[in-house]
Amino acid sequence: MSKLKIGLFGFGCVGSGLYKVLNESKQLDAEIVSIVAKNKHKPREKTKIPISFEPEAILDNELINVVVELINNSEEAYLIIKKAIQSKKHIVTANKKLLSEHLDELIALAKENGVSLLYEASVAGSIPIIRNLEEYYNNDTLTSIEGIVNGTSNYILSQSNKGISYTNALKDAQEKGFAEVDPKFDVEGFDSVFKLTILIKHAFGLSIASNQLLTVGIKNLKEQDVRFVKEKKFRVKLFAKAFKVENHLFAFVAPHLVDATHAAFDVGNEFNAIIVQAAYADKQLFYGKGAGSLPTASAVLSDISALNYNYAYEYRKTANAEVKLSDDLKLKVYIGSTNFSSLSEFQFEEIEDLYIGIDYAYQIGTISLTELLKVNWNERIELSLLLFSEQKINKQMKPIQNSNFNFLKKDNSYYSIH
Amino acid sequence: MSKLKIGLFGFGCVGSGLYKVLNESKQLDAEIVSIVAKNKHKPREKTKIPISFEPEAILDNELINVVVELINNSEEAYLIIKKAIQSKKHIVTANKKLLSEHLDELIALAKENGVSLLYEASVAGSIPIIRNLEEYYNNDTLTSIEGIVNGTSNYILSQSNKGISYTNALKDAQEKGFAEVDPKFDVEGFDSVFKLTILIKHAFGLSIASNQLLTVGIKNLKEQDVRFVKEKKFRVKLFAKAFKVENHLFAFVAPHLVDATHAAFDVGNEFNAIIVQAAYADKQLFYGKGAGSLPTASAVLSDISALNYNYAYEYRKTANAEVKLSDDLKLKVYIGSTNFSSLSEFQFEEIEDLYIGIDYAYQIGTISLTELLKVNWNERIELSLLLFSEQKINKQMKPIQNSNFNFLKKDNSYYSIH
Repeated sequence: MSKLKIGLFGFGCVGSGLYKVLNESKQLDAEIVSIVAKNKHKPREKTKIPISFEPEAILDNELINVVVELINNSEEAYLIIKKAIQSKKHIVTANKKLLSEHLDELIALAKENGVSLLYEASVAGSIPIIRNLEEYYNNDTLTSIEGIVNGTSNYILSQSNKGISYTNALKDAQEKGFAEVDPKFDVEGFDSVFKLTILIKHAFGLSIASNQLLTVGIKNLKEQDVRFVKEKKFRVKLFAKAFKVENHLFAFVAPHLVDATHAAFDVGNEFNAIIVQAAYADKQLFYGKGAGSLPTASAVLSDISALNYNYAYEYRKTANAEVKLSDDLKLKVYIGSTNFSSLSEFQFEEIEDLYIGIDYAYQIGTISLTELLKVNWNERIELSLLLFSEQKINKQMKPIQNSNFNFLKKDNSYYSIH
Repeated sequence: MSKLKIGLFGFGCVGSGLYKVLNESKQLDAEIVSIVAKNKHKPREKTKIPISFEPEAILDNELINVVVELINNSEEAYLIIKKAIQSKKHIVTANKKLLSEHLDELIALAKENGVSLLYEASVAGSIPIIRNLEEYYNNDTLTSIEGIVNGTSNYILSQSNKGISYTNALKDAQEKGFAEVDPKFDVEGFDSVFKLTILIKHAFGLSIASNQLLTVGIKNLKEQDVRFVKEKKFRVKLFAKAFKVENHLFAFVAPHLVDATHAAFDVGNEFNAIIVQAAYADKQLFYGKGAGSLPTASAVLSDISALNYNYAYEYRKTANAEVKLSDDLKLKVYIGSTNFSSLSEFQFEEIEDLYIGIDYAYQIGTISLTELLKVNWNERIELSLLLFSEQKINKQMKPIQNSNFNFLKKDNSYYSIH
């Protein structure tokens, strides 16, 4: 008899992947004993165990000691997870929205009930980033984390880097199954910012509401922006980024211009990558598949496996967190607009370039993060924002650190605060 | 009072780095209570605690519960570690030669004495590859691991990729401190093969003596080889590689030709990278600093930190290991020689290219691994061996797996067995 008896919520792409993987794995002492799905009428592969449609089939089953939650609706998932924790069941989930919105409450509830709440699959799919942040960087001083964590956006950007328009690239992504029919969550940056708040919790010990952070997706990028990017030999990457300068933490999601020397330059298509910088280990890059049935199932499986030896996240950095979220930052940006006059809304500290064409204008210069936070970028579709990955050093300020890191050298060691 | 009382053997580059890092770290409940160094006359930075020169100062100190071993001599280290384990002290070491030669014995001894033996720093410095192989891939089926694990060789190769001759690049590396005065260990592939056997233990559960494996370093590479590589737009990377086809495990260290589509193409200078391929997670790349005082100290520190919660490697794959080391493999290779007639020693299965110049000749074709194992490459300095990273599929054989992995697609999914 196996030690871990799993109740599985959700039998979609990842759920059925997990079922397959768990049946094939020889080394794991765990079995799925009950599956609860939502849609009674959806055609499915045959399973050895019957599929139920009532959450109670799992929640009231005392034999089940692990709930794996893989459903789409984050509010339903929240209620399920809460009840499951109260029934002393361990939780494995991939639901970043739910986690971003309720993490502290669920951590406290899990602690109170003596169960583990694990969610490696919620950020960057198969890349073991949460576990590494928890276990491996807990004594080294992390200074920054920068990730391509949304495969859909990265796929679309890869296509647009080839000169294909955003609209056609999105259509192609939808046809290939990389983008949802309603892609808002992905292309407006919300998926990335939810993941960023989870990463910040493990990297810097701070609990941050996603709506506190500048969140700009790729939706507004236009043909004219793509042309600029190509001409200047940049590529665009949607980064979820957080970095520390002394006790200030800066964090945002926005499309960035990267040049060929940047480690993320070649991270294409639906792939994810995360670059971590620490005081002693220096910069490290983790690269792999961020989504898809089997890679995500593989991450879920690792969490299940960790339950076999009673693993729980310890949030060691939370207790020691001296850093505070701050907006006191100046950034080098490109702002484009189909309406020239809207550029004058922005109070730049310094303007380097201004281009005005018949139907498009853009301005490059230094602007404060506070100024960028005033705009609802996803609503103002005439505006495009691109951050420069390589930022100028403000003369009054010292760079974060003097690294000899060559391959990644033009990256975020150049930010400064005031 | 801290829980972990550390006795430190070796106060060179890494040892003094660890001392610095441990003094700065706020989160770790550990302190160095005794240091044993070798050379009484070497000038050193001042330390708060006196430096001793007798191993007994640590081995006989009952207050010490952790021995961190960072000395060069692997035979001395072996004796120290054995005694320390028998005195019920946990071990943290970075000594790959020692581990490669005595791993199974030391694992058994540590188990018998109820202590942990940890060695993250022994392979790829700051990259947490052993911990990830142990914890994260234990339920996913690993199919291959491929690493640039020797920073010295990679630095020299990076220079030679720029057209600088091996001799000058080595001199430059020695001046910069990336290469030892006696670089044999690095440039003949021994350092890489020691690390490979440690990786194989954690990735595939097999104990392999390093002298069973084809081990070719970069020492023999000549100006003419560098010219060939440049003309064909390849780069050379010294890979330590192990991969599984059904129940056969193939493993070797050799310089490889990689093209611009390979994930390791841009891994330059003293950096390390490891590419792991698993059935579900697919390919993943870990990239970071493989050597140096602080990155290595950071890895040692992670092991010390893990001792705080009684962490020990579990070698889960060892019990289930069904794979056997095999030579039954055909490889596409480039063999160059300053002496044309020596090419005729090799029994190629198929010859694709033969070039004969006044003072140099090379041949490209398919050859068996058994045939390559007959030669002592490091002694036969007239011969250069380069493996093609992209191997042809043998028509009778199916590729290992049908991956959609684009960024890394031209890599080792193409090997085949007979």
